[in-house]
Amino acid sequence: MKDSAVLLITCPDQKGLVAAVSGELYRFGANIIHADQHRDHDAGLFFMRVEWSLGTGEPEQAFDIQAFSGAFAPLVQQYKMDSHLHVSEIKPRIAIFVSQHLHCLADLLHRHQMGELDCEIPLIISNHTNGEPLARFYGIPFHHIPLTTENKAEGEARQFALLETARVDLIVLARYMQILSPEFVRRYPSGVINVHHSFLPAFIGARPYHAAYKRGVKLIGATSHYVTEELDDGPIIEQDVTRISHRDQVEDLIAKGRDLERIVLSRAVSWHLDRRILRYGNKTVIFD
Amino acid sequence: MKDSAVLLITCPDQKGLVAAVSGELYRFGANIIHADQHRDHDAGLFFMRVEWSLGTGEPEQAFDIQAFSGAFAPLVQQYKMDSHLHVSEIKPRIAIFVSQHLHCLADLLHRHQMGELDCEIPLIISNHTNGEPLARFYGIPFHHIPLTTENKAEGEARQFALLETARVDLIVLARYMQILSPEFVRRYPSGVINVHHSFLPAFIGARPYHAAYKRGVKLIGATSHYVTEELDDGPIIEQDVTRISHRDQVEDLIAKGRDLERIVLSRAVSWHLDRRILRYGNKTVIFD
Amino acid sequence: MKDSAVLLITCPDQKGLVAAVSGELYRFGANIIHADQHRDHDAGLFFMRVEWSLGTGEPEQAFDIQAFSGAFAPLVQQYKMDSHLHVSEIKPRIAIFVSQHLHCLADLLHRHQMGELDCEIPLIISNHTNGEPLARFYGIPFHHIPLTTENKAEGEARQFALLETARVDLIVLARYMQILSPEFVRRYPSGVINVHHSFLPAFIGARPYHAAYKRGVKLIGATSHYVTEELDDGPIIEQDVTRISHRDQVEDLIAKGRDLERIVLSRAVSWHLDRRILRYGNKTVIFD
Amino acid sequence: MKDSAVLLITCPDQKGLVAAVSGELYRFGANIIHADQHRDHDAGLFFMRVEWSLGTGEPEQAFDIQAFSGAFAPLVQQYKMDSHLHVSEIKPRIAIFVSQHLHCLADLLHRHQMGELDCEIPLIISNHTNGEPLARFYGIPFHHIPLTTENKAEGEARQFALLETARVDLIVLARYMQILSPEFVRRYPSGVINVHHSFLPAFIGARPYHAAYKRGVKLIGATSHYVTEELDDGPIIEQDVTRISHRDQVEDLIAKGRDLERIVLSRAVSWHLDRRILRYGNKTVIFD
Repeated sequence: MKDSAVLLITCPDQKGLVAAVSGELYRFGANIIHADQHRDHDAGLFFMRVEWSLGTGEPEQAFDIQAFSGAFAPLVQQYKMDSHLHVSEIKPRIAIFVSQHLHCLADLLHRHQMGELDCEIPLIISNHTNGEPLARFYGIPFHHIPLTTENKAEGEARQFALLETARVDLIVLARYMQILSPEFVRRYPSGVINVHHSFLPAFIGARPYHAAYKRGVKLIGATSHYVTEELDDGPIIEQDVTRISHRDQVEDLIAKGRDLERIVLSRAVSWHLDRRILRYGNKTVIFD
Repeated sequence: MKDSAVLLITCPDQKGLVAAVSGELYRFGANIIHADQHRDHDAGLFFMRVEWSLGTGEPEQAFDIQAFSGAFAPLVQQYKMDSHLHVSEIKPRIAIFVSQHLHCLADLLHRHQMGELDCEIPLIISNHTNGEPLARFYGIPFHHIPLTTENKAEGEARQFALLETARVDLIVLARYMQILSPEFVRRYPSGVINVHHSFLPAFIGARPYHAAYKRGVKLIGATSHYVTEELDDGPIIEQDVTRISHRDQVEDLIAKGRDLERIVLSRAVSWHLDRRILRYGNKTVIFD
Repeated sequence: MKDSAVLLITCPDQKGLVAAVSGELYRFGANIIHADQHRDHDAGLFFMRVEWSLGTGEPEQAFDIQAFSGAFAPLVQQYKMDSHLHVSEIKPRIAIFVSQHLHCLADLLHRHQMGELDCEIPLIISNHTNGEPLARFYGIPFHHIPLTTENKAEGEARQFALLETARVDLIVLARYMQILSPEFVRRYPSGVINVHHSFLPAFIGARPYHAAYKRGVKLIGATSHYVTEELDDGPIIEQDVTRISHRDQVEDLIAKGRDLERIVLSRAVSWHLDRRILRYGNKTVIFD
Repeated sequence: MKDSAVLLITCPDQKGLVAAVSGELYRFGANIIHADQHRDHDAGLFFMRVEWSLGTGEPEQAFDIQAFSGAFAPLVQQYKMDSHLHVSEIKPRIAIFVSQHLHCLADLLHRHQMGELDCEIPLIISNHTNGEPLARFYGIPFHHIPLTTENKAEGEARQFALLETARVDLIVLARYMQILSPEFVRRYPSGVINVHHSFLPAFIGARPYHAAYKRGVKLIGATSHYVTEELDDGPIIEQDVTRISHRDQVEDLIAKGRDLERIVLSRAVSWHLDRRILRYGNKTVIFD
């Protein structure tokens, strides 16, 4: 198992940023694994991701992450950085929300079991019960919280209590067919990933495959994105498409779309967990 | 050079259609090259495309297309068919409309010269002059018709006169940045193909690459479609997409998009010329 | 649930084939759902797939499949057809073979449970034990048959006995890392589907991702195919690719490849079950 | 027009490299536009590409490229760098070699005219004459050098003399159907880009579309790569694929392949000209 640190930086672009950051890392003897930067010249912003080994198990001395963090603080202030330092031993904790369609849930749980997703999954929340056997098989606590128009506030309060108790960092909506309230979204400002079953911004809202069929498109798509208060309008993380023809009926679109949904959602979750995503405005920088 | 006939049929679905059509072709000794059918069960429609050899240059007797056409007429009536019979020796005549961006024009003319597009191109019409050298190189008459808000009706009248004289069957808008008037479109009810530089129905209208950049999508697309009176809403023929990243600026989207536009437009024109497309409602059947 | 019949025909190409087949179906009042034909002019072969409703649950009289089968026999003889008639109520029975990598198995079992694969799965056979919990979760009998170089013949005999007892029509090698003996393959002449983790014919044999990494390709692929006695040389059913970059290490190729393997294998199995595939020589016709 | 410098570095990986390079650039006040690094941990190599503005036309002082180059020399020695410094005002000079198929040539010339390819094209060399009108239209000198088995050495000598006179940096084989002699390749060690009409390493050598048709693949591809002395074995720059079906004959593969060839070759040339490619061993790092 790798033992590493990731530093994510967003700040106003200015000269000397890379020199300052890499100089500090060098001073502490960091053994850099990956580094990537990006500049958005229109927005005047600089983005950086650096990953380095924490040196455990090697003959050399372990990297002193506490000391580095302290020494780095003045740079944060000087360059007005929004910076985050993550160490791999502290695993993100994610909650999966699902309704009656289980293909994304099954896919995420299988990937987690195989080690593709570097996180803890302390709970699954659903407004249906049919996901429970799958949750039990993978050993994840399953909470059934039915939601109606009347009890929505109460239901969300129950969900929120569970999330708090489980100290959840990220919520993954794995084909969760309920719209989160603005209050809910505000409580997790950069922490809800959704998969929408269309190539956004085409076919926003309900029944996108039906709309795609009606419009006669020749490709269908799926989109994973961070959830914001405006429906299907959050920063896009990943999109993919597949070809359809006049022979495909709505049910064929739905079936082909399931494969897209699994792929774009699992990529989004995996990149988020690997700290590859930087949000800014309504966009994302995805460092590969 | 192949010497063949193509029969296209659209009619209400009912039993015995394939048997009736193929029986009649067999009676005339047709040597079938390709045949394809499709049923849209929701719409209750049947679609068929049959292509057969006209036998020239072979020891066997040539297919009697006149006699077949006469003998087929009762079937047309009986099954309420919308049917079209095309023979390969009568080449479709297309006009290309273009504005200042020439990549689609250059692509179509090169494909035509190489024999990929089985048609005549009697003229090119543009509201700019920069396409003239390219037209001259490929030996196609070029007509410069400047268009302003004031002279639009007059300009279209000049265009229409040229099209009539040249007996044009199909108009190809190869990045023609003017909106055709409803009257113009009505005069060519199934005969105008456009390329829109987005993945329709996303980013309808002007400056779609700028809109895609602003929305932060991860794929950009292009769409070829028949033109109807409603902007960017006609039956879609072909779509394709390409991946972009946070590193791509608007000008990169435009450059990557040019490759998509060439591909989706040339496919649409080629399929139309090969009589592979059947329009119905706002959709297309594309027989491969 | 649909109640339908599928007729698959391969025969020497000649005039009148479609008229004869569709005429006979019309005489029996078949309500055709899909029909497709193909001619390979080089090989002089004709291929046809027709699917029609068997009429249950409709006011009209049910289709008499026995009578049709009898009446069709003279055509089979006259046109030297290799023909197969399938009715949807008789479900194909498939066995899944797997080794220690379980992603394709998990994917197939989940699809089966969701109704995407129209078949029975009476058993899973593995030379490892780690697939057993998954099999148990989906309620499929699991047989552990360890294989060594010494006991290969004996192991295959045990496998074969299980397959016979379960009356298996199709064997799916879902990342089964053992090479079947020629005798085994001969016993299932058109009934073994494998997924190879490369874009065949590139990187035949063991460790294709390592070979792809070494060669420095920019896309990796996966291929599903029927198994023949020659390794990785059988008729290809489906292929797909995904983009990689210099940043991807062998383990990244393996992870990205898993998604490809799942897709191409599940498509192959699904098409086979839907009777969409016709094999001839070392090729396949895939009717969509 | 942008006025910028690009620095490309390959060297043994070691700590402090980014700090050293970016520190030196900062000391000279470089306004960095893009920077990217890569480490190949297996090979123990570090790769870097930095692009910065040379400041012309801005109020600030122009970057002193001569002084920087001198100051950077000790770092080159200290870190055993293989480094190249390019300034945008010195345009690469490329020669295009072509045989009778002109689609890649037409594509490259059109892109060059539109400003997509930032280079000079002082000459086109062909063993056929049919490319001459195209060359003349775009105003590029065209040299017809017929090649036979007997006169190959002499022909290459004539080619080489033309290349020397024109001070060519890069040779682009745009479907040039002759194999270069080892001597020729050695004279341009990192300067010949070829497009091969298959998904390498599948279908090496002549007539790859025929081989693909025979094998029954479901996708065809094209590959652009640097030429080495071993046929079709040089470092791959770009690959792409497109879907085919049983309906596609060899001539359809050839037609579909032409679109792939244009795309992968033009991307390779464009990336080479933008100094985005670093070769090492038989691989490439492509900085986007």
